[in-house]
Order: sequence, then C-alpha cells, then structure tokens
Amino acid sequence: MLTLEMIQDAQSALKGIARRTPLDRAPKLGENIYIKAENLQLTGAFKLRGAYNKIRSLTPEEASKGVIACSAGNHAQGIALSATKLGIKSIICMPAGAPISKVEATKGYGAEVVLVPGVYDDAAREAERLTKEHGYTFAHPFNDPYVIAGQGTIGLEILEQLPDVEQVVCPIGGGGLISGIAFAIKSLKPSCKVIGVQAASVASMYESRKEGKITTVADGDTIADGIHVLTPGDLTFDLCQKYVDEIVTVSEDEIASAILALIEGQKTVAEGAGATSVAACLFGKVDTSARKTVCVVSGGNVDVTTLSRIVTRGLTKAGRVAEISAKVADRPGGLLGLLQVVAESGANILSIDHAREDEHSEVNACIVNMVMETRNADHIHAIEEALRAKGYELLEH
Amino acid sequence: MLTLEMIQDAQSALKGIARRTPLDRAPKLGENIYIKAENLQLTGAFKLRGAYNKIRSLTPEEASKGVIACSAGNHAQGIALSATKLGIKSIICMPAGAPISKVEATKGYGAEVVLVPGVYDDAAREAERLTKEHGYTFAHPFNDPYVIAGQGTIGLEILEQLPDVEQVVCPIGGGGLISGIAFAIKSLKPSCKVIGVQAASVASMYESRKEGKITTVADGDTIADGIHVLTPGDLTFDLCQKYVDEIVTVSEDEIASAILALIEGQKTVAEGAGATSVAACLFGKVDTSARKTVCVVSGGNVDVTTLSRIVTRGLTKAGRVAEISAKVADRPGGLLGLLQVVAESGANILSIDHAREDEHSEVNACIVNMVMETRNADHIHAIEEALRAKGYELLEH
Repeated sequence: MLTLEMIQDAQSALKGIARRTPLDRAPKLGENIYIKAENLQLTGAFKLRGAYNKIRSLTPEEASKGVIACSAGNHAQGIALSATKLGIKSIICMPAGAPISKVEATKGYGAEVVLVPGVYDDAAREAERLTKEHGYTFAHPFNDPYVIAGQGTIGLEILEQLPDVEQVVCPIGGGGLISGIAFAIKSLKPSCKVIGVQAASVASMYESRKEGKITTVADGDTIADGIHVLTPGDLTFDLCQKYVDEIVTVSEDEIASAILALIEGQKTVAEGAGATSVAACLFGKVDTSARKTVCVVSGGNVDVTTLSRIVTRGLTKAGRVAEISAKVADRPGGLLGLLQVVAESGANILSIDHAREDEHSEVNACIVNMVMETRNADHIHAIEEALRAKGYELLEH
Repeated sequence: MLTLEMIQDAQSALKGIARRTPLDRAPKLGENIYIKAENLQLTGAFKLRGAYNKIRSLTPEEASKGVIACSAGNHAQGIALSATKLGIKSIICMPAGAPISKVEATKGYGAEVVLVPGVYDDAAREAERLTKEHGYTFAHPFNDPYVIAGQGTIGLEILEQLPDVEQVVCPIGGGGLISGIAFAIKSLKPSCKVIGVQAASVASMYESRKEGKITTVADGDTIADGIHVLTPGDLTFDLCQKYVDEIVTVSEDEIASAILALIEGQKTVAEGAGATSVAACLFGKVDTSARKTVCVVSGGNVDVTTLSRIVTRGLTKAGRVAEISAKVADRPGGLLGLLQVVAESGANILSIDHAREDEHSEVNACIVNMVMETRNADHIHAIEEALRAKGYELLEH
C-alpha cells in the first residue's frame, strides 16, 4: 500500500540522485500556466525517480541477482542509470527495431541491452523467460508501489516550489506518474485539483474510468509513445479513481502544436507524452482562467530524426505552413506567373515541386506543389482566393 | 565611457524587466561545462537587457519622439518590448523578406514594423531617413555604452551564480555582449578568462584583432544569423582588445552539432549564434579540461522551419544519419537485395528514393538513394563495405 511516508522517504533517498527540476512560469503559454520541467530530469524523463526508488528497495539477495525491464523508452534509461548508481546489474529487453539513439543511451547508462526480434510483446516474453531463468527482479514500469512513490516526489516538489498551486495537469500512460503525484497532492492540499491527460488514440485510463473498471483499448497510433499503454494497472487504476479529479484527452495535432509552443515560447524540448499536459491547457480541455496551473512536462526524449516531422505538423495545424497545389500551363513563364501571385500575397515559399508527369495532370499542363510559410488560416485562404481569381485551378490535398 | 557602476546601475534597473536566467551544469556536454541560458530570457535573447538600458536613459524629449532600430532579429524584439514597457513609441525597419515569425513577434511586443523592399542595407537607409525626418533616436544594436552596460549585467549574474567560475565563453557578432560581460568579469575577477567565439565564415572581430584594427570582412553564409556582422564597432573593438583573452572561430557544421547537442543533452533550444559558445567547447577550440567554464547561450530564437534542416546537418556531421546511393539492376527483387544488406548491417532506413531516370543511370539500372539512421562514421563505413562486397556500385555524394 502506498503511504505519504513512502513518498517522503523516496524524496530523501533521491537527493543527489534525481534532479529537483525547475518549476517556472510560462507566460507565453497562458497567464496562469507553470511548467514542472521533468524533461530536464537527468535521464530526460521522470522515470528515474520511480526506478531508483524501486531498485534501492530490493533485498540484498535480489540485488545480487540483478534487475530486468522491458522498454525501448524512458523506463529503460531510468532503470539502467539507477541500477548502475546502486552497483546492481541491469538487463533491458527491447524490440530489435528500437531507435538506435535509445539503444545507445541505455547502454551508455550501463545496462546490458538485449535486442529481441519482433515487437514489444516479443521483448516482454523474452524478459519473462530471462527472469525465470536467472532469478532477476522484473521492474514494472508503473504498477508498483515503490515506483509510484518515486514519481510522487514530483508532487511534493510542486507543493514546495509553488505553495499556492490550485491545479496540476499530468500525462497518463499506465498511470504511475499521476498516481504518485495525485496521492501526494491530495494528502497535503486536498483543494488542489489533479487532472490527467491521455492521447485520444490510446485512452486506456480514460475509457477504464468511464467503464468503471480496468479496460483494454484497441491499439492506435500516437506520437506520444511514452504514454502508449493499452491497459492500466490495478494499483494505478484504483489510485486514479480515488485521487484524480478528471481525465481529458488530446488529439495528435494538439500534441504536435504543444511541442511547437514549448520550443518557440519556452525554448524547451518536450517529447509527445510530455507535451500532452500543455496541449490540454492550450486547447481548452482544462480551464486555466481562474486557477494557478502546473503542467507536468514529463519528458524530453523525443527522437530528433522525427522532431522535424512533428514541428511541421504543428506549424500546419497553426496555419503557419501551407501546402498548395495548382495546375499551370506547360509553357515558358507558366511557373513565374503563379509565383508572382504567391509573392504578392506575402507568403514565403519553403519548397516547390514542379512535376510534368502525374496522374492528375493533362498533356499540356503541370502540377506545381508549393510548401509555403504563412501567417494563419485566414492568410492561407486569401492566397487560395488570389490564385483562383487569376484563373489557377487548385488541387485538394 | 563604460564603468562598472553603469553595469551595476543597469542591473538594478533591469529587476522585474529582464529575467535573471538560470546558470546550470551541463554534464552531457562536458565535465566542467555550465550554461548561462539567455535563450530563456523574456524575448528569447539577451538583447532585451541592453535595449532596455538604452531606452530608459533617453531624455524626456527624446523619449517623447520615439526610438527607431533596424533589425530583423533579436535586437528588434528587445527594443520593441523595452519601449512598450517604458511607454515609448518604437519603429523597427526590416527588410521585406524577413521571416514572418520575426515580424509577428516584433509587432506582438508593440512596435510599428516598417517592411522595406530590398536587403538589410536598404532597411538601414530607410531607418536613417525616418530618423532625420521625425527626430527619432536611433538605437544601435551594439556600439553604445548603455547597450553594452545592459549586456554586462550577464557578467555580474555569472559571478553571483557561480563565484568559482574560471572561464567564460561568449559569442561575438558586433561585440556588444562580450564587451559588457568581459568588462564586468575582469573588473571583479581578473583571473577568470573570457573567450569570444565567431562563425568562421563571418569572423570580423577575429580578423580585426589579427590586423590590430577594425576590419570589414567579406560577406559569408552562416546559420548564426544573430552574429552575422561584417564590421565591429569602435567601442566594442577597443573593449575586446582590452578585456577579451582570446577569440576563436567555429564552422557551420560545428554550430549545427552544438544545436543538436543542446536539444538532446540539455533539452534546450538555442539559435545558431547562441550555440557557438558550446560548439567551441565541444570541438576543442576552448580547453575546458581544467577550468570551470560558463558557455553563454545568447539566444533561442531559431526559426522552427529551418530548425529541422540544422538538426539533419548536425546528425550527418555526427555520423548518425547517412545518405548512400547505389546502382541496382532494374528487375524484380533488385531493390530487395540491397535493403537486405542494409538491414543486416543494423541501420534504420529513414527515406528511400528509387529513380529510373537519372543522368547517372544506365538503361538497365536504377539509382537507389537511401537516407538511414546510423551509429557513427565507422558504422557508415561498414555499411558501405558490406554493400561493395555484395557487388553494389556506390555513387559519391
């Protein structure tokens, strides 16, 4: 059973191990919005807290055998660094297709990485097999009281750093993070609301709450891979039922926009899961008009090779990048006329693709596909109208 | 003339106006490296400090007429916000091609933006004309003692936040930032080294120092647009000669790598100019092995539409993304065989382009261009060797 003493005990144990991350105002995101920056945690995510608190609680016999986890993400790095700091062997099973950067980071923290052919479930089965064979302790990513107590230290820090906090918004995957935070906050300041956020495409805790029982949801795509969990734990489900006031969901476009807003407004890098709390505030899922609101930005380990794609999606959603395709006569000056209209409208061309052979083009016409920097949706509309007024036929995207 | 009292006076005046930005350890960048995060300054760059200190020093008559500046960057935003806070009118001349995001941000801080057809010099001429016509005060971006005193407050903060600092590394464009910082540091702790960094392609202060007199350099391309200055000021040149220990230069690839290292290691967003100080440390231009070193990250206002390009460049430089082109027989299964070799080598394909018509291809062969995620330069070399061993002809990039 989770107790406040366990969380306070974890806080003492984490001194010098996990960073007390900054809690700062974020005026560009909203008048009452503050960020608890767990993306600035040592491994780039809050998972270090729970992982360390779990591993330090192993018996000497368990510790001598080692700890095993199955994760291609932040849990892997949290376990690896914690075990190394405590002088304990760690084994991390990952699906073979895991991003190289994650594999290297986990090895860098001192873990032995086992790449398992197949998907996550194959890696989990291999972890189970190795656990039985070698007597390792399996470290669950969220459904464990020591893990939850570790994450709960974030709740204590929020109350210390902003005593007049009125609302905390927190991402939910399996529910370990919010369970710990909500327990700590409601134990010490019951008037403070705690609101959870899930990706709409994988909303397992949201659906479970609606059904009143633990529910497995169908798999869906999300850029918030850190909260991609199809079934909540029993411990975390019960704690959410008791201590979380409300759960809301955000779309993929809203998450992408929040990542962009954090880059531009706060100059800080959040991963998809970490940005969901901000997305919920930016897109009206959580009312911040009258309450001092802390958004927990849970992590920043976004794969940089995909970051640019997310940024483009956020810009498109905000009407700041637009793609417009037009038919142009296949003769000298055809492209020039089109570009003049675009230039006069005040848009900056970012890339242009001028194709002669296309299923949509006729023999004497080309398709010109333009990606341009625009001000907002109204500006895009004005550009399209100006092109149509000059007789250009536009293609739907 | 600049005095320590002017800088201390600016520090008092800036309370509640400019943020006292964090100074944090950056262990993933190096054992002795600390970051002074002026990218987290309110306008996203240090320029606010000098701009506010300049405008608050105007006479009532000057203030009543308003202030004018010519900039498409951080100086514009600093002047705009400072003037608005002091209830003074501000006019900013920008070349018409300035990024829309910068124009909008400057307007958002309350300035009147005048878009001038042409390049920077045309905007500067228009600013001069308007200054004469309306009696505005022209706010120089760096060659002004009040501006320099404002930037010098960063030096005072560094000494307060890390009293045992032994070395400060700072970007140089026109020289306003480093002049203020170096003056403050050398006045209070002469043993602390101050090292300046310039982009190698536009190294005007570096060349001026070498020549022993103010020197204008030929224009060059750089992603560090914030320090793209062809001629240092006379004030800043003199201060650099007296108080800066050394000036080094960094390449474009090194700047891109530093931006990437700050995103991945520190989860923080720097613009090109801001990352030059970190680049100098990461690439051995500054020895940090025995000295506690503060890198001034001067700003974070990087255009997000170009950020992804910079990140790709940084990944390529680090051998973490590679582009390999191979000739493949134009028959069923030709592409499959190639991809098998790549998959066995452990690289992840990011994008692939399979073209039949190409100046390099023969009638019965295709060119396959692959962009892949790799571990490092050795890994890329191994993949190329494996492909050649299987008989594939590779094309040079």
